[in-house]
Parts: sequence; structure tokens; C-alpha cells
Amino acid sequence: MEDCPCKRKKLDDDTENSRTMSSNGEEQEIKAGSQDKEYFQSYADVGIHEEMLNDVVRTNAYRYAILKNYEKIRGKVVADVGAGTGILSVFCVQAGAKKVYAIEGSALAKQTRLVVEENKMADRITVLQGRAEDVKLPEKVDVIVSEWMGYALFYESMLPSVLHIRDRWMKKDGVILPSSASLYIAPFSDDEISERLETWSAMKEKYKVSMDCMKTYAKQCLSYGAHVRCICPEDVIAHACQLVNFDLSKVTVQEVTDIQRTFELTCFGSSVLHGFVLWFTVSFPENVILSTSPYSQSTHWGQTLFYNEEECDVRQDTQIQGTITMKPNKAKPRFLDVNIGFQIDKHNIQQKSYYMSDNIT
Amino acid sequence: MEDCPCKRKKLDDDTENSRTMSSNGEEQEIKAGSQDKEYFQSYADVGIHEEMLNDVVRTNAYRYAILKNYEKIRGKVVADVGAGTGILSVFCVQAGAKKVYAIEGSALAKQTRLVVEENKMADRITVLQGRAEDVKLPEKVDVIVSEWMGYALFYESMLPSVLHIRDRWMKKDGVILPSSASLYIAPFSDDEISERLETWSAMKEKYKVSMDCMKTYAKQCLSYGAHVRCICPEDVIAHACQLVNFDLSKVTVQEVTDIQRTFELTCFGSSVLHGFVLWFTVSFPENVILSTSPYSQSTHWGQTLFYNEEECDVRQDTQIQGTITMKPNKAKPRFLDVNIGFQIDKHNIQQKSYYMSDNIT
Repeated sequence: MEDCPCKRKKLDDDTENSRTMSSNGEEQEIKAGSQDKEYFQSYADVGIHEEMLNDVVRTNAYRYAILKNYEKIRGKVVADVGAGTGILSVFCVQAGAKKVYAIEGSALAKQTRLVVEENKMADRITVLQGRAEDVKLPEKVDVIVSEWMGYALFYESMLPSVLHIRDRWMKKDGVILPSSASLYIAPFSDDEISERLETWSAMKEKYKVSMDCMKTYAKQCLSYGAHVRCICPEDVIAHACQLVNFDLSKVTVQEVTDIQRTFELTCFGSSVLHGFVLWFTVSFPENVILSTSPYSQSTHWGQTLFYNEEECDVRQDTQIQGTITMKPNKAKPRFLDVNIGFQIDKHNIQQKSYYMSDNIT
Repeated sequence: MEDCPCKRKKLDDDTENSRTMSSNGEEQEIKAGSQDKEYFQSYADVGIHEEMLNDVVRTNAYRYAILKNYEKIRGKVVADVGAGTGILSVFCVQAGAKKVYAIEGSALAKQTRLVVEENKMADRITVLQGRAEDVKLPEKVDVIVSEWMGYALFYESMLPSVLHIRDRWMKKDGVILPSSASLYIAPFSDDEISERLETWSAMKEKYKVSMDCMKTYAKQCLSYGAHVRCICPEDVIAHACQLVNFDLSKVTVQEVTDIQRTFELTCFGSSVLHGFVLWFTVSFPENVILSTSPYSQSTHWGQTLFYNEEECDVRQDTQIQGTITMKPNKAKPRFLDVNIGFQIDKHNIQQKSYYMSDNIT
């Protein structure tokens, strides 16, 4: 848990704040002064990018994918959606792109421009500050590249923005990188949590105060939201079930914002079921895969854990049948409402709603 | 940095949300349903209390202070301001208190009651849910106990609420625990930050992308807000200067919400000054001191670091003269506006405003 690199949070805050800043699609400077406070909000702003770039699994997957697909990029026009520091735009120029439009919604665009200049690519990369839905590109693009994935794929996800650019600005036979995305679910068992709840019983010995009643409350709090961390492969107690497998050249905004799926899982052996874990993979042409599975090297996305209200015992071949829905929260579309229902060997029906917000722990 | 226990954040969020919930001072149950969502906001809510209780330096200081001062508490009436899980109320009964009024603003009051019942103290401890400013106690109190301190003493501090209870509900010769609070400032040097900024230069080797320009931006972000962590004693480069030493039986709300001080520091030897570090101590009668100094055992408060815009070299006996102001932010009174100005050997004047918000990193 301590070594888990997953901490990506509040990624789009800045983007949200500055969505109205540039809507004519022209390259424009941020007005100094009034925006400064927003621009230097906190070290967290730059920390997120530091963390994403230091996630070598993520960044190298994109790097290899872009360089390996140089035949699709060389001499072509590219849109980089949610460019951030601009690293994917630079990779595309290194792969031979004729022109890259780096679209960045937040005030970080100022930095993106500096990175472009520092890499002497100002003639090839044009930074456009504005939301993807408003931005006007000077021409249609052959390729879209974007790192849009959030926790559990869809939390704070930029995918609808990417699809908007695809439908509005990509040529008919254009290529989208990554080209597909899959989401998986598996049941998990988690000893750490029982240990952590024991903290409350330990108060008796530590301070001569009984606090067992806090365990119930702690359990309820625990199962209210989602948790992001790197789970051990041993804690996954059945083969995962694929919930979603989207071809990103075809999927619609409606399809990615209203997920309703069923799943079936068969337990490996005797264990205690504490909840369900979600992770995703995205794939690029030429067989490059970025996986956030617990069986792969850790990324800053970790895995996303949903705790059940009650733990239950399972045995070898116990069947878990369930349903899951995932939708942006109506009031706060950055956040995600998740509902998981399941039964075990056709008994013991449980249903639970979760709310994925900035409070992710 | 990894072992630093300091993570106390958003402590009063819940309190803020539920401030209007109970204003008649009667013990009242939270309405189920509508409040549930607020009540189980996230594991972070219970996590904060878990963290504070697991901070043995903090909790044992209060325990020893209360038990050592049993002569002031035995047979007396006590108010516990911001009771949280109720542990200080339980300590007071263990020290012989006749009656404790546990005032808790947030919906956690429900849990406080359960803890009281579990410890079979329902006849001695009455939990009052409501803000300190609104709550009506059935009688005046002999003793006030409260753990009100925030980062840098005053961030999200409950001190004004404690002073309100003191002025409205404490008997003339009442005792307030802790009885005094001091705030210290010292200059610090920090190699870790230079190393961290090197991350951006390392991108060249890692991914063949130059990102030196991000260092300037990262530096600016860094010096925008405050940072909470446990600093090494070696990084403190001069003896600390006491900024504040409040006698809590006398200090006024005005005095604790409008801090303006000067300070003078004499450097130990040749070093690089990166910024200023703040920490506090609180004292109880009978010589019990809770210190959050870098020279003491770490607490979850860590120390609070303010980075200067520019680093500067200092030598042995270099004089640093400065001013500091600390005031609640006008728009968001939970947050703190801090301004630090200083000159070195009467040259090199720097002035910087910081904003302490939930974005503390």
C-alpha cells in the first residue's frame, strides 16, 4: 500500500475552472493578474503532472505506441486531446507528424507552449487552449492521441471530449490512439481492512477507552465511496470478467456515459469476499497494451475497490452473479455514481450504491 | 517524508456542513435518511479520527495532562469543545469529573454518544450536537478541555469557538486545558525539493523530451501555498523565534485571528535558505507539554513549510529580520492568509503571500 503509486486526484479541477477561458479556438495568451491565482493554485497542480510523467508504465506505453505506429503518424496531422505538459505531442513529432494540435483546457497551456519551444517544435505543434467541445481546429486531423483514462476508467474521464473531437475533427479513415479500452471486474478479499478496523478495538489497551462501536461506523464509511490502491494478485479471488470493450473509433458518448452490465464470477477457493475491484486496459495498434491490472506492474491508477456492506464466505466454484451501473453524477458530472448488485449461488442478494468523488481514499 | 504521520486535512468540513443542524442546545437525534449521505461521506471522515487517535504523542499528552490535573477535574463540570470520538470526555470522567458536556458540531455526535454508552458513562457525559457558538449548556463549567489546534496552530483552528465557550460558559476561576499555546518560526534549508525539481530535467534522459522550463513553474506552484511534512532537525538553520505565546484564559478572539509579528533569526552557519517553517506547542498545568517541534517526536501535524520565491545563501551569524501576518481568509474563514516578509543582513528584501487551503500538500 505504501509503495502504491496511485494518487491521481482532482485532475480536471483546473480544466473545469478555466473551461470558459478560450472558446474561439485561436491561440491566445492568458491574461496576467486575474488568472495568476488560478494558474498557480497549489503544488498539487504540477504534482499531478510530475506523478503522471514519473509513471513510466503509462508514459512508456504511450511512447512505444506512438513510435511503433510511426507509419500512421509520419507526415500526418494529429490532435492531442488534453495535452497537459505536451509530452504526447512531442512524441508524435518524434514519430514524424507534420502537424500536431495540442488541445489543453487548463491554464497549463502556457507551460505546454514553453515545453514545445524548449523542444524546438513550435513550427510543428500548435497549442490550443480551450475545451475540446469549443476548440476550432484549422484543419481535419488524421490521428487523435489522448490519455483520457480516469480511475475505474470513467471517473473524471475525458473520453466524451475525445469522442467529440473524433466526430467533429477526425478524417473518415482517421486513427485513434489508444484504439480500444476494456474494463474488468473481479471479487477481492482484503485482510488489511480487518486489521485496520482492529485499530478501534486497540484503543482499549492503548488509552483505556472502549471504541468497538466505531468499527461499525468505520465499515459504513468504508463502503460508501470507492478506494484507490494497488491490490495484491493474491487478493483477487476469481478470474476477472470483462465488463466493457470499446472500439474507440465507433463508440458513442451515450455508450460511455451509461454503463449497465451483468457479470459472472467463479471463485478459486475458500475465502472471504470483501468487495469488487475494477481495473482497465487500453490497446494501441501494433500490439501495445497499457494495463492497470493487479497482475501487471503498478501504475498511478492502481485499482479501484468497492467494499460490500457485509463480507461473506465463498468456496471453490462459488458463483457470483451481479450487475453494475456506472454513470456521471447528475449534479457533478466529473463524479461517478456506481451501483453494484450481486448474489452468491443465487442467494444472499446485496445491492449497494457508491459515489466516486474527490473524497476517494 | 514517507514516515511522516502528518495528513490531517479537511477536518472541519463536516462541521461546516452541519453547523445549522442543532441550534437549540438540546440533545437531538440526527434525522435518518436525509443526513445519511452527509454522515457517511467517505472513509476520510473516520480516517481523520483514526489518524488523530493513532497519534500517540497527541493523545497521550492529553491523557497525561487530564489525569495529572485530576485535582482540578475531580467532582467538577467540564466542557469538551469539539469532542470528536469523545475520548477527552472519557479521560475527564476517568479523572473524576462529575459531569462532562461533549460539544460536537458534526454528525459524528451520533458516534460520540455510542462511545459514551460503550464506556458506561452516559450518566456523566452528555453529548450536545451543535456549534459552540449556538449550544446552550444547562450550567456553567469549571473546566474546558479541547484539542483545537490546526496546522501552523491557526489553520482550520477551533480556537475562536473555544474562547466563545470560555467567555459564555466558564466560571470565573475556571481552568482551560491546554492553558497556553506558542507558535515558533525558523528558517529552513531543503535539499529534497531541489532533488524533486530535478525530476523535470530527468525527462530528457527518460523520454527524450526536454522539460527544464517546467522547473520554474513547479517552483512557483511550490511557493504558492503551505506544505505540511516532518522536517529533519538538520534542516532547521537557526534557533527558532517565538511568534506567539497565548495565555488561553485571557486571550481574545481578535488577538488570535489577527496575528502580526516581527522576528529575528541568526543563522548557525553556511547554508541555503529555502523558506520558513512554523510549529507550535501547547502547555497544560503540571508541566505537560505537547510539542510539534522538529526536535520532538513526530505528530500528525508535522511542521508547516512556507517556501520563498527565491533561495538565498546565508553564512554563520547572518541576520534574518522579518514580519509575518496570519489571518483567516475573508471569503473562506477556515482557510488562512499568511504573509511573510524578510531581509537578510538588511538587504535582499522579499515579501510573499501564501494561501493555506485544502490544497495543502
